[in-house]
Amino acid sequence: MSYEEALHTLASLKEVLGARGWLRATSGNLSLRIGPDAVAITASGTDKQRVRPHDVLLVDLAGRKIDESPARPSAETGLHLAVYQRTDAGAVLHVHTVFNNSVGHHEDSLAIRDHEMLKALGHWNEDAEVSVPVLRNWADLQRLSQEAYDRIDPAVPGFLVRRHGVYAWGADADAALHHLEALEFLFEWIYYQELRSTVAREPGHVPGA
Amino acid sequence: MSYEEALHTLASLKEVLGARGWLRATSGNLSLRIGPDAVAITASGTDKQRVRPHDVLLVDLAGRKIDESPARPSAETGLHLAVYQRTDAGAVLHVHTVFNNSVGHHEDSLAIRDHEMLKALGHWNEDAEVSVPVLRNWADLQRLSQEAYDRIDPAVPGFLVRRHGVYAWGADADAALHHLEALEFLFEWIYYQELRSTVAREPGHVPGA
Amino acid sequence: MSYEEALHTLASLKEVLGARGWLRATSGNLSLRIGPDAVAITASGTDKQRVRPHDVLLVDLAGRKIDESPARPSAETGLHLAVYQRTDAGAVLHVHTVFNNSVGHHEDSLAIRDHEMLKALGHWNEDAEVSVPVLRNWADLQRLSQEAYDRIDPAVPGFLVRRHGVYAWGADADAALHHLEALEFLFEWIYYQELRSTVAREPGHVPGA
Amino acid sequence: MSYEEALHTLASLKEVLGARGWLRATSGNLSLRIGPDAVAITASGTDKQRVRPHDVLLVDLAGRKIDESPARPSAETGLHLAVYQRTDAGAVLHVHTVFNNSVGHHEDSLAIRDHEMLKALGHWNEDAEVSVPVLRNWADLQRLSQEAYDRIDPAVPGFLVRRHGVYAWGADADAALHHLEALEFLFEWIYYQELRSTVAREPGHVPGA
Repeated sequence: MSYEEALHTLASLKEVLGARGWLRATSGNLSLRIGPDAVAITASGTDKQRVRPHDVLLVDLAGRKIDESPARPSAETGLHLAVYQRTDAGAVLHVHTVFNNSVGHHEDSLAIRDHEMLKALGHWNEDAEVSVPVLRNWADLQRLSQEAYDRIDPAVPGFLVRRHGVYAWGADADAALHHLEALEFLFEWIYYQELRSTVAREPGHVPGA
Repeated sequence: MSYEEALHTLASLKEVLGARGWLRATSGNLSLRIGPDAVAITASGTDKQRVRPHDVLLVDLAGRKIDESPARPSAETGLHLAVYQRTDAGAVLHVHTVFNNSVGHHEDSLAIRDHEMLKALGHWNEDAEVSVPVLRNWADLQRLSQEAYDRIDPAVPGFLVRRHGVYAWGADADAALHHLEALEFLFEWIYYQELRSTVAREPGHVPGA
Repeated sequence: MSYEEALHTLASLKEVLGARGWLRATSGNLSLRIGPDAVAITASGTDKQRVRPHDVLLVDLAGRKIDESPARPSAETGLHLAVYQRTDAGAVLHVHTVFNNSVGHHEDSLAIRDHEMLKALGHWNEDAEVSVPVLRNWADLQRLSQEAYDRIDPAVPGFLVRRHGVYAWGADADAALHHLEALEFLFEWIYYQELRSTVAREPGHVPGA
Repeated sequence: MSYEEALHTLASLKEVLGARGWLRATSGNLSLRIGPDAVAITASGTDKQRVRPHDVLLVDLAGRKIDESPARPSAETGLHLAVYQRTDAGAVLHVHTVFNNSVGHHEDSLAIRDHEMLKALGHWNEDAEVSVPVLRNWADLQRLSQEAYDRIDPAVPGFLVRRHGVYAWGADADAALHHLEALEFLFEWIYYQELRSTVAREPGHVPGA
C-alpha cells in the first residue's frame, strides 16, 4: 500500500466512523501498516471526524517518526504498534463509544458465547466462546502498551481498555472495520441483555400485552 | 423483474438498510425473486453496506448457482429459499440488529398484540395477535432452513432466529421493507416495555415530576 | 398557501421526519390546511419516507376528496380534520415512534411539568404543567376522531394515541414541527426518567465512580 | 475573527449539531466572541437546525444589541455573556439533549472521575475528578446568569442547567465543540452506568451466556 492509498483509506475510515459518532472529542486513532517497518497513523489532538492536511504521520515499528510532517504522534501510538508487533494486522482502529465503555467493567476479560456475530470475528464453531481481554486504563502508556502486547490473543481481533475504548484490527482496513463492527454490536447487545436481565419474566408471558 | 432491475433494487435496499446500521460486519442477506426458478441474492462474505460489482449472484429454487459470476452463495441462502418455497414472497430481507437479538429469548414464538403497527403486517383486526416464530440458531444450516420451512406462518411475514437476526418478506421489495420496518419497530418497543416494566408506577403519578 | 407550495412543504417534512426514522412501515400522516375548506394530506398506504407523484390528495373539512388524483385518503384523515375543526392549526403531523409508544400507557393524560422544553409548547410559566391527552386506540376511526375532537386542549398542541403514535400541530409547518420535536424530546426524557427511577441513589454518590 | 467568518462558523456548527438532534424545537444557542466587546449569537426563536439570513445578531458584553439586524437576542444571552466575562472562551455552545437532562438531577454538581474522556476536558491526571456545576433552572434569567457567573469553574469548560441543558465552551469553536462532545459522551455513559447498576452481577458471570 502506498502512502497516497493510505491517506485515502484513512480518510474513508474517518468518514464512516465519524458519521456514527465513534470519533467524538478528538478521540480515537486509526492506523494502517504500509510496509515492513512503517505505519501511517492519525496525528495527536486532531479531530478524526474531519479530513485535513497534516493530520496523518508515519512512524516505524519502534514508534519513531519517519516523515517530515509537522504532525505529532499520539501517545496511544504504542498500542497500535503492540498490535502490529504481535499480529499480522494491516489496520488498527481505536474508538470510544458509550457501549464499549459499558461492558467489561468488573472482569479481566469479557466472555461472549452463543452468538451469530462471533462468526464475523472468525469463530464458526457452534459452541465458540470468545474472550475479549479487558485492560486497566493505565496512565502510563508504556505500561499499557506492554500489557496490550502481553495479553493480545491471536484468535480475538480486539481488546478493551476499561473506561476508555476498544482496539480492533484485521488483515486490511475492511477486515478491521468488520471486526470493529462485530465487537460494537456484541458490546451493545451485552449491555442491553444485562439491563433486561433485571426483569422477571414468566414463561408464556406476552410481551406486547 | 429483469436482472438489471434486481441489481438496482438490491443496491437501493443496501443503501437504505446500511444507513440504519442494520448490515454491520458483513451481516445480512437480501434477495429478490426474478422468475419462476431464479433468485438474485447478495454474495457470501461481502459488505452489504456497499454496492460493488460481483456482490450479487443468481440461484435456482434448489439453491444451485445459475450464473457465471465468481460470487459465492451465502450459507444462509437456504433460509431465503425456504421463504420463496412456502410463500408468494417476491423479496426476502435478513438483518441483524441489537433489538431483534433482544426479544424472543425464552420462547418458541414472540406474541404481539394490541399495537397499531400490526396493521403494517396485514393484521387490521382490533384484537389481532401476531405470533412471530423464533427459531433456534442451529449451526447446521440445512436443519435451520428446514425448520424455517416448517414453521413459516403465511399470516406473519417474518421469523426470528435467536441470537442471530430476523427474516422478513413481502410481495415485492417495498412490501418486504415495510414488513421489516414494522417488525423492528415492534421489537424495539417490546424491549423498551420489558425494561420499563421493572418500574413500579402508581396511578396518578406525574412522570415529569 | 398554494397547492404547489403545499406539495413542496410536505416533501420537505417527509425528508426531515423520514431521516429520523419517524415514518417507518408506511406509518404516519402529514397534512397542511391550504384554504378555508381544503386540506392537503398524504395518501393512504404510501411510504411517507419517499416523495412520489400522486402521494398527496385534497380533502374538504368534512373529509370528502376534492381533487381528481387517484390517491386514496387515509382512514386517519378524520383525526387531522378534528384538529383543523377545533384549532387554528395550519399543519398537523402524525408519527409513530418507540418513545411516543412508551409513555402514557396507564393514564388518560400524560402530565409534564418543570421542564424547559415546555416553553417550546408555549408554556413559559415557571410552574407550568402540561397535560397531554392520551386516547385509546379505537379500531373505529370515527369514534377515535370524535374522541380526539372532544379532548383536544387548545393550550396543548398535541395528543397521544396509546400503542399507536402522536398527533402534533401548529400555525404552520414549522410550528407543527417544533411542537412535535418538543413532545418527542419530552417523551424520550420521561421514558428515560422512569427507567432511571429504579436505581436507588444516595446523596453524595459519585456517578462516575 | 470577522463577522463574515463568524457567520460561516456558526452555520457550520448548526449543521454539525443539528444533524445529531441536539438543536430540536428551536432549542439551543450558539455564540462566538468576535472582539473585545462583541459577541455574535444566534437569534431568539429561530430554528438553529437551519441556516437563514437574519438568524444571527451582535451584542456587546453587557448584552446590548450592537447591530442593525431585525433579529431579537435570546433571553439566554446572559448565560453566554457570563461565560465570556468569567473565562477566555472564544465560543459558547448551549444544547438540550435527553442525556444532559438525565444526569445531575439530585446534586449541585456532577462529579466524574476515572474516565479517559476527562483528558478531552483538559484533565490528564490519572486520579482527576471533574465536578460539573449543576444549576437550578431559574425562570428569572438574570438570576440564572448571575448564578452561572458565580459557579463557573475555570478548570471545567461547562455547566449543566437542570431539566434544561448544557453550556460548554472553549478557546475557539473547535475547542468548544470538542468539550461539548466529551461532556455529552460522559453524560450518556453516566446515565447508562446508573441504569446498569441495578443489575446484580456475580464475579465470573458470562454476559453473553
